[in-house]
Amino acid sequence: MFPKGFKVGGVRSGIHKKERKKDLALFISDVPANAAGMFTKSVVKAAPVLLDIERMKKGGKFSAIVANSGCANACTGEKGIKDAKTMCYEIEKIFNLQAGSALCASTGVIGQYINMPKFADVVKLLKDSLGTSAKNEDEAVLSIMTTDTFIKKSSKKIKVKNGEITIWGCVKGAGMIHPNMQGLHATMLSFILTDAEIESKALQKILENSADNSFHCVSVDGDTSTNDTVIVLANGQSKTGRLSPVDMKKFALALDEVTLSLAKMIAKDGEGATKFIEIEIKNTKTKEDARKIGATIATSPLFKTAVFGADANWGRVLAAAGRAGVNFNPDKTDIYMGGIHVFKNGAALNFSEKAAKKSLLKKEIKIVVDLKSGKAASKYYTCDFSYDYVKINGDYRS
Amino acid sequence: MFPKGFKVGGVRSGIHKKERKKDLALFISDVPANAAGMFTKSVVKAAPVLLDIERMKKGGKFSAIVANSGCANACTGEKGIKDAKTMCYEIEKIFNLQAGSALCASTGVIGQYINMPKFADVVKLLKDSLGTSAKNEDEAVLSIMTTDTFIKKSSKKIKVKNGEITIWGCVKGAGMIHPNMQGLHATMLSFILTDAEIESKALQKILENSADNSFHCVSVDGDTSTNDTVIVLANGQSKTGRLSPVDMKKFALALDEVTLSLAKMIAKDGEGATKFIEIEIKNTKTKEDARKIGATIATSPLFKTAVFGADANWGRVLAAAGRAGVNFNPDKTDIYMGGIHVFKNGAALNFSEKAAKKSLLKKEIKIVVDLKSGKAASKYYTCDFSYDYVKINGDYRS
Repeated sequence: MFPKGFKVGGVRSGIHKKERKKDLALFISDVPANAAGMFTKSVVKAAPVLLDIERMKKGGKFSAIVANSGCANACTGEKGIKDAKTMCYEIEKIFNLQAGSALCASTGVIGQYINMPKFADVVKLLKDSLGTSAKNEDEAVLSIMTTDTFIKKSSKKIKVKNGEITIWGCVKGAGMIHPNMQGLHATMLSFILTDAEIESKALQKILENSADNSFHCVSVDGDTSTNDTVIVLANGQSKTGRLSPVDMKKFALALDEVTLSLAKMIAKDGEGATKFIEIEIKNTKTKEDARKIGATIATSPLFKTAVFGADANWGRVLAAAGRAGVNFNPDKTDIYMGGIHVFKNGAALNFSEKAAKKSLLKKEIKIVVDLKSGKAASKYYTCDFSYDYVKINGDYRS
Repeated sequence: MFPKGFKVGGVRSGIHKKERKKDLALFISDVPANAAGMFTKSVVKAAPVLLDIERMKKGGKFSAIVANSGCANACTGEKGIKDAKTMCYEIEKIFNLQAGSALCASTGVIGQYINMPKFADVVKLLKDSLGTSAKNEDEAVLSIMTTDTFIKKSSKKIKVKNGEITIWGCVKGAGMIHPNMQGLHATMLSFILTDAEIESKALQKILENSADNSFHCVSVDGDTSTNDTVIVLANGQSKTGRLSPVDMKKFALALDEVTLSLAKMIAKDGEGATKFIEIEIKNTKTKEDARKIGATIATSPLFKTAVFGADANWGRVLAAAGRAGVNFNPDKTDIYMGGIHVFKNGAALNFSEKAAKKSLLKKEIKIVVDLKSGKAASKYYTCDFSYDYVKINGDYRS
């Protein structure tokens, strides 16, 4: 299921120091496409982020996204910007695109320059790698992966008045995951392609809403990256024309499905993760309250190590909730861990530790915190904290 | 070096499930003392915290602090409050103290009731354990320790106009450490005893200022506890009379020394820690800016695992600074890791990786981030994130 008028591919360029690893991906539209983008809100923004923001602020249409792994091109000053521009320029040149219509993204080690000898030669290989098959998709995604252990892609086809529209998306990201982006202003990289015809402004609004309920509800380690990027290209090649309000809503829902599916894959593939955790905070006064508590629990090392150990230590859930900056009444609060009611109205329940252990040994754990003080709710997605997280990150650069 | 008119001791009561571990401490003054206290700002406050806040709000003098390890008496509802009152009551009874003049504190597992059969008998043992020797001090501190690996105590003697004043303090805390307390409203427990004569109000103010530059600048894992507590008792038994403004300032500085020394010990003894890390953020616009950046770096799992791996991954320092919510110019920023200048004015320096590794293999690591945009500064203390942190916390309850 791939949208019309796009091609994708990936090759080995040599930027990533791991031998034979594919490290350069291209996502390209046959015709200039409308675009929407969200980028890290960190004060420290990588060169490709700075370049994309500049280009998208100018408006206009975009034809390509070129992305590499192995080097974040962050904290690289003037030279970094120049390198990002070169990446884009070589793509624009070989495909005869309008100047400034290529976007770029990088992920990997911070503070190193992209090593790009013979980049023009590599781009020729990249051109040859393009296609629309599942193999092409996988090669593109493999090229942007770093510590990811599996390919994360998702797609959805919807029927609209004048035909069919396809949304295809991919994401990379396993560590330094706690996206916090803002329209035009993480190292999560997500590229979404659709053949729908949608104005950039409307697309931006739909993307921001969608990211708010997906990428912004995921945390692996609480670290927001210098490179987080989500870009959507909408090229109109479904030839279904401008969407009616009803179809626009259908499109937004479909995008929500794609982004949520990608976001959950990030949590499942968290560095060193052995378990996927869904945290539902319900019956809060506001959605913001629910989200603050969810985020605080999801980033608590004590909670995450307890889940790793399959320990129904609900005290850590409640302690994290208590410091989230939300005023609530612990004596009205209920907690469920792995489907077991462990805490009710401020007091421990006499649950079976054996049953709880069994439940928490599963690969997917659901935690519910019910404040019983309102009608709002929010879900947050994360993973446990294992020995492997420490191993992976104790020596990432070497 | 112990203040006049105080006795301390510790025994095994059986509250802590580990066999033979001492788990009940008493800090007692010969005469009622002025007191100052700071407690967790978490919405979820343990029963002893709630009781102490209530008692201290009423004002008056206090004679004793009874504290146990092994059970936090948190999320224990009405029964928890009753148990905390019983702990205090038994102390008041045996020492013939005024009703309500004992304070209490607990640390350990959340959500379990304090098991106190024959508590009155235990209190007799506790009375027999009291004294002023180094052995008595150690037994008291050992009794409040949980995952701590060494005894944390500090003292300071100062000369004042009419004689000498002694300040003695102890602290326990290795995990769930990210104290965030507020006057009368942290599982760090710290008890400070002094024979100075100081009014409660002045003492509270001095304590709050002192905590702000010590306990509030330490993070092990970013988790603020339901039980964090600091209590100072000032019994006036130095007989040096009311302090002059000059002597008051001397006292405040001495208290700062004691609290900072205790705070650093917490970071050194962080759960699973192999290294002590001092993070200095300097030349910021405001102290608050420096502190926000320091706290964000100190709680970044990516930074902490990199230090564990002795990896001079300054990109993670900068990435954490970038998401701290402080606006600064990365292109004017310098970073030093283990004394090595690794990043200057927004760009990587070509430092020796070998020298950096050697430096980061030391037990005490200093990180400096220089924003060169103001005159404020702050220090933050933490530790690295090791396999043992995961091991200790993956199965804390069993």
